[in-house]
Amino acid sequence: MPRLAADRYALVADIGGTNTRVALAEGRQLLPETIRRYRNADHPGLESVLRRYLHEEGDVDCAGACIAVAGPVRDGVGRLTNLDWTMDARTLARAAKAETVAILNDLEAQGHTLGHLAPDMLRPVLTGPEPAADAARLVIGVGTGFNAAPVHETRWGRVVAASECGHVTLPARTEADLRLSQFVETAHGFPGVEDVLSGRGFERLYQFVSREAGHPAGKKAAEIMATMGDDPRARETVAHFVRLFGAVAGDLALIHLPFGGIFLCGGVARAFTPHLAEFGFAAAFRDKGRFSELMTSFPVSVIEDDYAALTGCAAHLASLG
Amino acid sequence: MPRLAADRYALVADIGGTNTRVALAEGRQLLPETIRRYRNADHPGLESVLRRYLHEEGDVDCAGACIAVAGPVRDGVGRLTNLDWTMDARTLARAAKAETVAILNDLEAQGHTLGHLAPDMLRPVLTGPEPAADAARLVIGVGTGFNAAPVHETRWGRVVAASECGHVTLPARTEADLRLSQFVETAHGFPGVEDVLSGRGFERLYQFVSREAGHPAGKKAAEIMATMGDDPRARETVAHFVRLFGAVAGDLALIHLPFGGIFLCGGVARAFTPHLAEFGFAAAFRDKGRFSELMTSFPVSVIEDDYAALTGCAAHLASLG
Repeated sequence: MPRLAADRYALVADIGGTNTRVALAEGRQLLPETIRRYRNADHPGLESVLRRYLHEEGDVDCAGACIAVAGPVRDGVGRLTNLDWTMDARTLARAAKAETVAILNDLEAQGHTLGHLAPDMLRPVLTGPEPAADAARLVIGVGTGFNAAPVHETRWGRVVAASECGHVTLPARTEADLRLSQFVETAHGFPGVEDVLSGRGFERLYQFVSREAGHPAGKKAAEIMATMGDDPRARETVAHFVRLFGAVAGDLALIHLPFGGIFLCGGVARAFTPHLAEFGFAAAFRDKGRFSELMTSFPVSVIEDDYAALTGCAAHLASLG
Repeated sequence: MPRLAADRYALVADIGGTNTRVALAEGRQLLPETIRRYRNADHPGLESVLRRYLHEEGDVDCAGACIAVAGPVRDGVGRLTNLDWTMDARTLARAAKAETVAILNDLEAQGHTLGHLAPDMLRPVLTGPEPAADAARLVIGVGTGFNAAPVHETRWGRVVAASECGHVTLPARTEADLRLSQFVETAHGFPGVEDVLSGRGFERLYQFVSREAGHPAGKKAAEIMATMGDDPRARETVAHFVRLFGAVAGDLALIHLPFGGIFLCGGVARAFTPHLAEFGFAAAFRDKGRFSELMTSFPVSVIEDDYAALTGCAAHLASLG
């Protein structure tokens, strides 16, 4: 359907390591029928993919454009380790022919989504007391990588902060934890949270658990999940992952005090949702000594909307307008 | 000197575990000659100490009042573990007879100080690139406890977030780290950062180092610092403390991305300042594998102003006005 109304729409895009999803929004409202997906490998850069999209949408004219990048954004420039695209305001403004542009980290975009998701897109994991309207919130993403974004409501508007918290020290409290930490350090020179709490990290954890059991072996993430019933090492890997995820999420809760709630997102977090209760996510999250009671103050839920980053881009643009 | 000009002044106070310091400010400007100190034990509550102060200052009438509390502030109520004073907006407004009141955590107050300190009150520890004016900053306090406050500059104004990051998992990467972690866990049920990185934590670390050396012993913090030249265990305790401090500060830098700088404050941080270079603070701070280069982006300095929390209270009140 050609969309010729000038300056009515916003262009939003979610740029991952492999694919880019692009859509139009009207104000805060993402238009789901406009979502298209492109393989990054088929395009030389951001301009190419956005121009192709706009052409396919009938050369719609956009007032604003916002992209979410699955990598760090610094001084307005987004970066993805495996992609040499230039992702800055000038390129985005030129590609989208838009006046207002913004470049967000993907977790920041998820932070801007809060309050704009359909209620059935949030699945509760841990309940907590009813939060104050201006309470801080925290988005934690586990997928290809691990990261988080604290969301602060101020009397002026919303502030979503950037982070690289997937690269902090992996917590270790037992001898087994330390062996895992050193197993990761041998491969990466440093035992970071993301080196275990991510898709590839989960596979690395299976290797570690297998080695500990005296039978070194490797499996793909989907296979580990699928064989939990037959392979005790797969089951132990899932249990270990859930415990570590709980411990790390608990540390992040103490750091950001998200009395307004913690929101898990990303493909790996969503895949683990059905297993969090069985394998003790709550106990690991709350295992903070004399602060264990405080830990019951933070409700936790999972964002099930796969297009949340696009909605977040639209909400952020609307807040700038 | 009696101050009778109505509504010209702001009342500011810094409430610690043992003493409360109270002063007047004119706008953002702390009036150093008005600073008085009171022992908390001599007063039944906040009202008593503030009324006494105001009486001693000639019953000055204050337009605003702001207190910094060395403990968590939740829903506008400050708490100190060893003090049963009621510290909320109503009590503060009544005691100070002020219209505008605010209750901050002491680290939040330090965050509001940034940009309002005399240049000679900042001592550089690690240099970094010239930061952008709106770059995030981070205050880390080490004294009776450990905490931090991220400072975000937005297009509307400054946002300082609350934290309880002294209670996250103590990092452990070596067998010795893990033994320390378990030594702390035996005493506290959980190995928190503050259980080592604080005044009492430093004494606990000396006990651990002595025990590791086969000669269990204890010393007060000041004595450990004073005997570094004679007692190898005191020296090793200082070295271990500095390394852990660097590792924890590095993790907090990855979490908050303070490209505008990290500002250390608190009595213990100030006491360690002369020893940070010798014992490898920079190396520990930057020891983050492939993120080591990013770690050179964060300048670190020490706030040497003992009254910074009072200045921060004044700056915060002025920003509300």
